[in-house]
Amino acid sequence: MSQKKIGVLLSGCGVYDGSEIHEAVLTLLYIAEAGAEAVCFAPDIPQAHVIDHLTGKEENETRNVLKESARIARGEIKNIKDMSVNDISALILPGGFGAAKNLSEFAFKGPEGKVNPEVADFLKNMMDAKKPVGALCIAPATLGMALRERSPKLTIGSEAGVVGALTSIGVKHSLCKVDEICVDEKNGIVTAPAYMLGPGIADVAKGIKKLVEKIVELAR
Amino acid sequence: MSQKKIGVLLSGCGVYDGSEIHEAVLTLLYIAEAGAEAVCFAPDIPQAHVIDHLTGKEENETRNVLKESARIARGEIKNIKDMSVNDISALILPGGFGAAKNLSEFAFKGPEGKVNPEVADFLKNMMDAKKPVGALCIAPATLGMALRERSPKLTIGSEAGVVGALTSIGVKHSLCKVDEICVDEKNGIVTAPAYMLGPGIADVAKGIKKLVEKIVELAR
Repeated sequence: MSQKKIGVLLSGCGVYDGSEIHEAVLTLLYIAEAGAEAVCFAPDIPQAHVIDHLTGKEENETRNVLKESARIARGEIKNIKDMSVNDISALILPGGFGAAKNLSEFAFKGPEGKVNPEVADFLKNMMDAKKPVGALCIAPATLGMALRERSPKLTIGSEAGVVGALTSIGVKHSLCKVDEICVDEKNGIVTAPAYMLGPGIADVAKGIKKLVEKIVELAR
Repeated sequence: MSQKKIGVLLSGCGVYDGSEIHEAVLTLLYIAEAGAEAVCFAPDIPQAHVIDHLTGKEENETRNVLKESARIARGEIKNIKDMSVNDISALILPGGFGAAKNLSEFAFKGPEGKVNPEVADFLKNMMDAKKPVGALCIAPATLGMALRERSPKLTIGSEAGVVGALTSIGVKHSLCKVDEICVDEKNGIVTAPAYMLGPGIADVAKGIKKLVEKIVELAR
């Protein structure tokens, strides 16, 4: 049997303006340890902004989401434009603010902000193809916005503002601990809180491992 | 008993111009899983250069090693100037070209290049304090250069050019597989080939886990 290919949709490189690096790397680790193959991709767009991760301040600089994501993928990455849902059996979105700043406008405008059209189309096509989608940390916000017509069930930590923003658009929220996952059987969506709860890398690793194993199991 | 503190010396964020991201994150994961605490730090210096990780080409841009390393550390990082060997029980250097471009000049000038003076002093002070030091991938080159007077024994993959460059300055080389570690008992130095051999993240994870566990065991 050939290896299952699991897409990993990245959004830059760094928790405050891109993909959360620990979540992305642990996703890649557990995909490989489950005997599947990761296929990294990202949109070729400018980041919403660049944050100095030492001070938390915005820099007067522009960076590209695909190029920065390539750092996590060691150069093995595709442009989302060149990807089809036929190329993968399942998809995982790591968290980090990039998932809610570059893939959608959730972090700036809440649930009525836009989702990047390429990302929205890809997520809808995954659902239409009945292929499972996983999301970590804040990434379920973008998933919930893109797929609101399906009233997805997901977990996104315990901050009342974030949870309320999503339930206001019809998302069903399920509170999970950091080592638990939320499985929406109807839609084939699996989510885990990761660094929305933390606090440490060994804590988030437990939930990420469970999520990846579930996604690989569901992938056909 | 209080947690052992294990220093992690970073060199940027990305395999071609900074710390190898997978190696750095897996180091942090296994330190936490071993019940120890990671203390990330890096020099506050410009990177030797910036590489577009999508194309492999040099960019006309400057980035700072400490700021980029902060992405891997989620902002929890110190300037090497503010660190003393008294703050930690052991030290690990992840690989990536940054370890041989920013922490030393090995990648540009070979073993006769300079080691960053703050890094060289820190490594010598660790040895004088009889505290163990681990290094992954290409980082043992910088270690070998800084500590050549001690004729350290280490592993650095199997490329004849790299191995020959180090043995030419008195380093003893031991060939290891990706899931093995090289232990220099006399000097308290532990090394693993990681992505010098690869090929995949699940392969390098095995050696990194062994190295971290050995370093935590040796740490007093």
